[in-house]
Formats: sequence, structure tokens, C-alpha cells
Amino acid sequence: MAPTQTREWIVANPPKGEPVYEGENATFKIKTVDLPEVGDNQVLVKTLYLSNDPAQRGWIQAGIDPERLYTAPVLKNEAMRCFAVSQVVKSKSDQLKDGQIVYGQSTWTEYAVLDASAVRPIDEKSGIKATHYLGGVGATGLTAYYGLVDVGGAKEGETVVVSGAAGATGSMVVQIAKHLVGAKRVIGIAGGEKKCRWVESLGADVCIDYKAPDFKEQLLKVTEGFVDVYFDNVGGEILDLMLTRVKRFGRIIACGAVSTYNSLGETGIKNWFEIVANRLEIRGFIVTDAFTAGKAPGYIGKIVEGVKAGKLKIGADSETVVPTKFEDIPKTWNSLFTGGNQGKLITDLTA
Amino acid sequence: MAPTQTREWIVANPPKGEPVYEGENATFKIKTVDLPEVGDNQVLVKTLYLSNDPAQRGWIQAGIDPERLYTAPVLKNEAMRCFAVSQVVKSKSDQLKDGQIVYGQSTWTEYAVLDASAVRPIDEKSGIKATHYLGGVGATGLTAYYGLVDVGGAKEGETVVVSGAAGATGSMVVQIAKHLVGAKRVIGIAGGEKKCRWVESLGADVCIDYKAPDFKEQLLKVTEGFVDVYFDNVGGEILDLMLTRVKRFGRIIACGAVSTYNSLGETGIKNWFEIVANRLEIRGFIVTDAFTAGKAPGYIGKIVEGVKAGKLKIGADSETVVPTKFEDIPKTWNSLFTGGNQGKLITDLTA
Repeated sequence: MAPTQTREWIVANPPKGEPVYEGENATFKIKTVDLPEVGDNQVLVKTLYLSNDPAQRGWIQAGIDPERLYTAPVLKNEAMRCFAVSQVVKSKSDQLKDGQIVYGQSTWTEYAVLDASAVRPIDEKSGIKATHYLGGVGATGLTAYYGLVDVGGAKEGETVVVSGAAGATGSMVVQIAKHLVGAKRVIGIAGGEKKCRWVESLGADVCIDYKAPDFKEQLLKVTEGFVDVYFDNVGGEILDLMLTRVKRFGRIIACGAVSTYNSLGETGIKNWFEIVANRLEIRGFIVTDAFTAGKAPGYIGKIVEGVKAGKLKIGADSETVVPTKFEDIPKTWNSLFTGGNQGKLITDLTA
Repeated sequence: MAPTQTREWIVANPPKGEPVYEGENATFKIKTVDLPEVGDNQVLVKTLYLSNDPAQRGWIQAGIDPERLYTAPVLKNEAMRCFAVSQVVKSKSDQLKDGQIVYGQSTWTEYAVLDASAVRPIDEKSGIKATHYLGGVGATGLTAYYGLVDVGGAKEGETVVVSGAAGATGSMVVQIAKHLVGAKRVIGIAGGEKKCRWVESLGADVCIDYKAPDFKEQLLKVTEGFVDVYFDNVGGEILDLMLTRVKRFGRIIACGAVSTYNSLGETGIKNWFEIVANRLEIRGFIVTDAFTAGKAPGYIGKIVEGVKAGKLKIGADSETVVPTKFEDIPKTWNSLFTGGNQGKLITDLTA
């Protein structure tokens, strides 16, 4: 029989700095709520996998001006929003049958009633794993392609630096830069030897470890002669250093700033004047713009084409799947900010 | 008889933070040097007026990487470089006669031997004061026009915010935005009531005082609905605040960061993520690019046209002329960084 109630995680205390994971002031709390009736063109789904994205941190920031956020914030006592892969338990839609695997926007919940139009069915015969629709062939891959090629205008023969290169977006940027754009040289920045070697296996000419004591010296060396494009996923000190390593009239693609999401303000940017002196161009972007501009299907098509041609690898090592009890959803999410993942961080609720 | 020696100010100790104006470690020191013979196509000139520009601070920064500076640095023990209006004392050029007033690059010196091709004669019949060739109808006005119109793409009907609005560049940006571009609304930011009222007299719809205790509240109010373009002359905290006040897909023109030139690194930028979330575009520029691109004569022509048509005002209140003894040249220059000038700061050595 279909459930009539579900547990969900709500944002009990929107954080300003580090989220809190224990006690009375915990950022997230579990609540049991009644499920609404399944209406026409709706489905009741069971959550299987959650997408973990640094951007989610922005949605819950305390005191955020909704006009300045690119998407609706998650307000106090609302369920924590995410992308998810789910399975249809009960369908009142012609488009979706019981048992169908779907992906789309959802919340940190066991069960949800969703509009059928808000989810997309996964073609299980395609050979592409369901979770990759949350990663390389989904919004994450699109973020990489749209940011690098459309916003940043990366071109064949250029030198590209990517930070967060072992992350979900970064690992796709590396591959797209090297294998689709035809960059002359791709330089990755990631945390730890193991991740760096993986990034190199994806196509980076070199990947350097920002945790190494001589990181700065290494970065200066591998960026000798300066670089055309810097794809920034991390912000903070690495961004600040890169302001000094981008060529005159070079470009910085501002995709995210994960190093600063949990800090209270300070970004450590000292080299702003490099933007003036070296005529840098910086462009921020959000992947939803690709959808708005009608460019998403075409760009995702390029990625799928690249996968089929064997140029892009989206495999088991492109995601870190963490079997997680419902009670531990926030903890798995938090490992995004402590460098716990290689590729896409997926919360696996099926175990 | 023509002099054979001159006093000049050299950069004795390139500074990292605040320049030092007294004692053994003084940034600048006076040196008496022999003047070279005046060769063919050269002139011996007497310095009349010095241009004071925040950019000069960058040229003398200790430890600057010459590859990252947009122009050659002034090295330790070299004469401090500047733009100047001078008078020809002795000419060995067909193009320039004795007594001619000229402007061009020079140094903080009493006399100099310059290539005739490196200076331009001032047309004394034009009615334009010689010192304005260092300001509104010179490189300063060009900086404003090129930055606002070419780099920033400001268009009729847009809302433009300008910081350092009572400065040499800012006061031209205000006028060009309002009277040539046709901006719907021009908002100035300047230091002090008197300067603010002057900026409004130039055409700003409103100018607010960054020294006012309620500056932030005032800024939020006058930028309600957000703005299309921010022309940044100051960097630091005002820039940081403006990152939150530029419209989605809006532009920031990075012209300078005078508030940070004498500080050791920290820029106070906390709102970098606004660039991502609101898809801001930031472009740095240097006025010399306008010359390189062959656009300078056309843009200066637009300014002169605007002056002749009565749209732009470059008058006595567009410059702060400070009668200065040779010994006090660095002190007059320093007032750039303490808000001592309205419009172009000119050192007058003729008194």
C-alpha cells in the first residue's frame, strides 16, 4: 500500500557560516509530514539517489536577498531542495508508469508527490547509469560545457586552468576542454595526489595538488607564460592566485566559490588590481541560463555524442556514491565542502 | 643661458604599503644630475605643470612583476615618471620653437631633454587651458570615454554608478554618461558634501557621500531596482558593496582601485559570489589600449566636440591646481590618496 506519510529534512536554522549538524541549533531537522493526495498528472515517488551540489549552500544562506539569488531560496522550515533520481510508486499520469525511474527536482525526503511534467523518465536501455543523469550527462555536465564554451569562449589551442578539477563540474570541464574544445594544454587543480592522477587520466596535461606545501611554486611553474582561460569552481585563495596567472586580456569563468560558501564574508582576494592592469574579463554564470536560452538540449547532445564517441568518460570513477541512511543525508552532503568526493557526490538511499 | 644641471626626484625606496615622505627610508629623494646635450630633434624643456595620477602608484610598487604591469615600472633610483606640461627652452627640432608650450611624458624634474616626437604642442589659440591637456581633453577624459562607452558598452537609457565621481576620471565619466551617452540615471559616489554637490552640477542625478555615516543605507536607496553599469575607480569596500547592487547580467568597468593602492593586500571583497549568482561581467582596462587600437583620436574628438557644444564642462572647477615648491612635489601627489582634489590634481611649479 502507498505510504501516506514521509520523513523529510527541513531547513530549521538557515546558516550564516558553517552549517551545524547536531543539537538544538542544527541547520537541518527531520520532520514527519502527511503526503498529499496524488492528483491528476502527478506521481508519488520514492527517493533513490540525491544529487549533492555546492550551489545548494547558497539556497539556504541566512538573510539572503531573494532578488540577488538566482533561484528561489529554501526558507526556514521548508524541505531542503535537491535534484534526485526517484522511482514511481503510484502514477496518475499517462506519461509515467508505476516502477518507472525518473529524475528531476525534489527534496531530502523519503517519498514525494511530484508533477509528472517536472520529472523526466530515464531510458534504462541507453546503458547510461541513472545517477549519471544527476552528473556528467545532466546539469553538471551542462554546467561544464555551457560555462567553458559559451560563457568563456574557450577555443582550440588555448591553455585552460580548472580548479575543483576532481569535482563533478571540474572533471567534466577538464574532459570537454581537452577532448571536445581541443585545448592545447589543460591544467587541473585538485586536492590530493590520488585525485590529481585521476584528473590527469581524464585528459589534463598536469594536475597539481592544492594541499601540497609547495602548491604556489608548482602553480607558477605550470602556468609559466600565463594562461588564456581560468574556470573557477572554488573562489578564495586559489582564485586570488589565478588572478596573477591569467594572460593579458584573458578570461575567468566564475562558476562557483565552494571554498568560501561556509565562511563569513572574507574571500582573501588581494589581487583585484590584476583585473585592471591585465584587462581581465570575468563572467559569472548559472547553468539555468542555458535552459532559458534554449541551449541546454544541444549542449547535452554534444556531451552524449562525446561519450558515445569514447572521447568523454563518465564511468564509475566519475561519481562517489555514498550509501547513506536517511538520518545521515546532511552529513553526506557536507563532505562536498571537505573534499570528500571524486566526481559527482551521490547520496545512495537504496541500501 | 640654458641650464646644464637639474634637480629631479628619484624613487629611492619603492614602497610596498604607504609611501614614506620623510627620513632615510623616504620613498622619493631629490638628486641633482647633469643634463645631457640637446641632440638633433630634441628639446630642452622647463617643467611647468605635473599631472598626478593614481596609476603612478602602481609603477613604483616594490617587487612588482614587470610582466604583469601594463607599462614599464619605475625602478629604484630612476626618476619618477609623470605626464607634464612644459615649455621649450632650447629646441633642436624643426617642429618646435623656443617658448612653445608642450605636453607629454616626463619626470618630476625641473628641466628635461626630451625627444621632440614624444611631446605635443599645445594650441594656445584654442581657448583650452594647457593643464586641461593633462585632464579632461587628455588621457583622463579618454580614460572616461573609452572605459564607459567602449569597454563597458554603456547605452542610452541605462543607469550608471560612478565611484571617485569628483576625481579627474570620475567627473568626466559622470558628464559623458549623462550628456553624451544619454544615461537615464547617473549616480555618483564621492567624498564630502561639497564634492557631491559639484558632481550633481556636472549632471549626476544624485551623488552620495561615502564618508556619511549612513552611506550604505543611502547607496541601497539610490540603487533601488539595481543598476546596469558600475564604473569603478576605487575598489575595496565600495566595490564590494556595488557587487550587490549591479543588476543581473550587469557590467562592472574596472578602471582603478585607488582605495587599495597603498594597502598591503587586503581588498575587503566579500561578495565575489554575486558575480556568479547574478552573472556579472567585469572588465578591466587601461587607457593605453585605446591608443593601441587607434581609437584615441576619435574618442578625444568626441570629448572636444562635447565641450564645444556646451555639453561637457571642463573649467576651473574641473581641476585642483596646487602651487607647489619643487621640494613638495611628492606631498602634492600624495593628496590623490587622501581625497585632496576635485577633478584633476595639477602640481603647479610656475609660482
